[in-house]
Amino acid sequence: MNSNLSNIGLIGLAVMGENLALNIERNGYRVSVYNRSGETVDRFINGRAKGKNFQGFKNIEEFVASIERPRKIILMIKAGGPVDAVIQQLLPYLEKGDIIMDGGNSNYTDSERRVEELYERGIYFVGSGISGGEEGALNGPSIMPGGAAEAKEHILPILEKISAKAKDGTPCCAWIGGGGAGHFVKMVHNGIEYGDMQIISEAYFIMKKLLNYSNDRMADIFGEWNKGKLESYLVEITEQILRFRDKDGNHLIDYILDAAGQKGTGKWSVINSLEFGIPLNLISTAVYERSLSALKDLREKAAALYNPFLVPEPFKGSGNPEHKIENAMYASKLVSYAQGFQLIKAASNEHNWGIDLAAVARIWRGGCIIRSAFLGEISNALTRNPDLENLLLDEFFKKEIEQALDDWREVVSVCIISGLPIPACSSSINYFHSLTTKVLPANMLQAQRDFFGAHTFERTDRPRGEFYHENWTGEGGTTASTVYAV
Amino acid sequence: MNSNLSNIGLIGLAVMGENLALNIERNGYRVSVYNRSGETVDRFINGRAKGKNFQGFKNIEEFVASIERPRKIILMIKAGGPVDAVIQQLLPYLEKGDIIMDGGNSNYTDSERRVEELYERGIYFVGSGISGGEEGALNGPSIMPGGAAEAKEHILPILEKISAKAKDGTPCCAWIGGGGAGHFVKMVHNGIEYGDMQIISEAYFIMKKLLNYSNDRMADIFGEWNKGKLESYLVEITEQILRFRDKDGNHLIDYILDAAGQKGTGKWSVINSLEFGIPLNLISTAVYERSLSALKDLREKAAALYNPFLVPEPFKGSGNPEHKIENAMYASKLVSYAQGFQLIKAASNEHNWGIDLAAVARIWRGGCIIRSAFLGEISNALTRNPDLENLLLDEFFKKEIEQALDDWREVVSVCIISGLPIPACSSSINYFHSLTTKVLPANMLQAQRDFFGAHTFERTDRPRGEFYHENWTGEGGTTASTVYAV
Repeated sequence: MNSNLSNIGLIGLAVMGENLALNIERNGYRVSVYNRSGETVDRFINGRAKGKNFQGFKNIEEFVASIERPRKIILMIKAGGPVDAVIQQLLPYLEKGDIIMDGGNSNYTDSERRVEELYERGIYFVGSGISGGEEGALNGPSIMPGGAAEAKEHILPILEKISAKAKDGTPCCAWIGGGGAGHFVKMVHNGIEYGDMQIISEAYFIMKKLLNYSNDRMADIFGEWNKGKLESYLVEITEQILRFRDKDGNHLIDYILDAAGQKGTGKWSVINSLEFGIPLNLISTAVYERSLSALKDLREKAAALYNPFLVPEPFKGSGNPEHKIENAMYASKLVSYAQGFQLIKAASNEHNWGIDLAAVARIWRGGCIIRSAFLGEISNALTRNPDLENLLLDEFFKKEIEQALDDWREVVSVCIISGLPIPACSSSINYFHSLTTKVLPANMLQAQRDFFGAHTFERTDRPRGEFYHENWTGEGGTTASTVYAV
Repeated sequence: MNSNLSNIGLIGLAVMGENLALNIERNGYRVSVYNRSGETVDRFINGRAKGKNFQGFKNIEEFVASIERPRKIILMIKAGGPVDAVIQQLLPYLEKGDIIMDGGNSNYTDSERRVEELYERGIYFVGSGISGGEEGALNGPSIMPGGAAEAKEHILPILEKISAKAKDGTPCCAWIGGGGAGHFVKMVHNGIEYGDMQIISEAYFIMKKLLNYSNDRMADIFGEWNKGKLESYLVEITEQILRFRDKDGNHLIDYILDAAGQKGTGKWSVINSLEFGIPLNLISTAVYERSLSALKDLREKAAALYNPFLVPEPFKGSGNPEHKIENAMYASKLVSYAQGFQLIKAASNEHNWGIDLAAVARIWRGGCIIRSAFLGEISNALTRNPDLENLLLDEFFKKEIEQALDDWREVVSVCIISGLPIPACSSSINYFHSLTTKVLPANMLQAQRDFFGAHTFERTDRPRGEFYHENWTGEGGTTASTVYAV
């Protein structure tokens, strides 16, 4: 009977779970599968799993018993309560040293808690982001595991095997760090995905509305961009989307309603950026833009009231405007990744997760939705300087930003004068200008806060950490210019 | 002894508490005060309260017993755990029908919980935002009470009496609604305050850096603005700040460090906007800009690496550029208030708080930090149409935006071309353009989401609520253009 034991177990046979199970089996492992609904197990075992190295179970005790120790059990189920419920069902049958890995889009604070709670019972919990959609799950996703360090040696070799491989052959999977590190990194990945998609949408909108380009012409341009510095999966599929015609010969893109959905990881990224005090302007703009797009009724009323104000302002010079747009997109993307990585760094420092940022960039080069050539450059920058506080301080980024800067400014400016929304590229250039200007007008904020709330301020001619209060109105007597200890 | 009973009790004798107690007493009430530290009670009773109608207590049981029933006890203590702790200390001595009001900056979810928990014990809890700083607490703040409806008739007359009065004589206090409504509205008030301050800072920065105006000249301009459509407390104090010279004759504003602090209510506003799906771009930009200003070391490194790129672009025409800046500020402010009120409306609907938005605008006209003439216009718009989904749909707002639009676009555009950060005005104009353009490029987002994740889309030629999935790559067979039921 021992020879019959599976190497690994997987719970949850929705499409992502099925595909991941098939991926694991194809890589030489015997896999036990369990699903809440027994019919789903039968369907899978008699269908896509037929003739393959699977064992199907409708009883969770038998499922657990069928796996070699230490057991490795991957959950591919809905995030939230269901994960806790399944853990409770598993616990009576698990033994010390067994491993549970959650491969769903869980909130990292849940993973942080589960790692701790299960650790006390001798069970090693791993929270792992998996990106790549259904197709990635089957053929090789980007995998971001983190959690109880004891699990690493047992689970990582399997995950590396089933993960996508970058062009240089390295697996798109690495141990991210302790606690909820894996799910935090996946959350930021998804936030960056929101940003990339918004940037592409803005480029599409400029070409469509200001330049009146046809879908096929735009498809050609995205195709060209995909051979250059914007090379990425999302640019690649944008070309395909713009070229796609339905059975009547119409471009499907023109019939898709402009009301976007979202599932929460973008929102979580922004909430965390606020908690950590790290600006995440571009991603927050992308999240708001999705929310606004969903308020379709309100937008229709507003459009009817104000009428469209669009008066296209021409681009300067005789060059291709799409080259300028490419530069604006690229620079905005640089800002977005700089912000995202700074957030990961801040969270890693705060939680002592020990995240290797270069490894994060490396494993995003393949398998996941934001995969791109550009992530190799980020990985290089972070390998050169692992303590880099913000990617924009890297020489490569400086060079790239500086060559794009004039075009970036012109594109944003032209859109604003013309009345065309360009929220993400605007927020990123304003962040760049705010970051690199020698001073900000925050002296005025501090003066106001001290004026109405006695919140104190620091002085440019005194050391940091000395706080002063001024008696601005001349009323109140002796409290003027007082130094406060921190 | 009965004749000795106080009309009201107050706990917490820090500056805000002291001032509020003095305000209440001045309005004809006998006030019992209690503080955790007995010395503070002595200092107050023998100091500012001397000869006035106060009773001081160092024992909480005696404090409670000194107040006429139903007791009204106002907490002026640090938000969070301390509020719960003091409630627990009070409970043994309270009787059914007694009222506790929390006047601190509590998170509305805490107030929501406290209203419910105390209601079960027959105690009526009120969570009340109070704005106006120390000076407002003493001379008349804007007060935003909400919570257990039974408390309203007992507490509202007192609060109205001690509140600021608008120019038409009406009190800047109204019953906001049930549960945590009072603290929610105060939170959004503070978020709007963040936005107003950021807008003013941007105007200051344009005049200082692009136009090279002196502090005195800018003070004159803010003084002029305070006579027009921007009339407000924050514009008024900005003039005073710009004019203020220290004892050496230097303008103090030039010596204040550009690193801003923040206390959390701005951040909470943004987090709630994300939870409710209501774009709050301008306030979120203001919060991020404060965070970025605080990252002073990072900014210095970035400024040294990139050098300043500031190349002032001239404004068009021969008019005063400050008139254009005034219009840009004003339009941005319109957007910010439209976003803030939409958020309050969404929360009120969700929680069934029954908030009267016109009343909110009315009680913000005086006493609070964002007080302004403009809030009267908002109150009028919301009185004309209490169901207004977004202020920008109101005719007055339309007129104001349209006359400012060209200047707004030019100011933002000039700043971006010049390399000057103008994040809040940029985010607001992009929101306006996104809101009023007939379509958004969210069709591209939906196409991408369906392409890589089968998230489905709606069609422009089909009713809302029908969801389609396309087989974009031609692989996967029969799932093309499937209709999904919701």
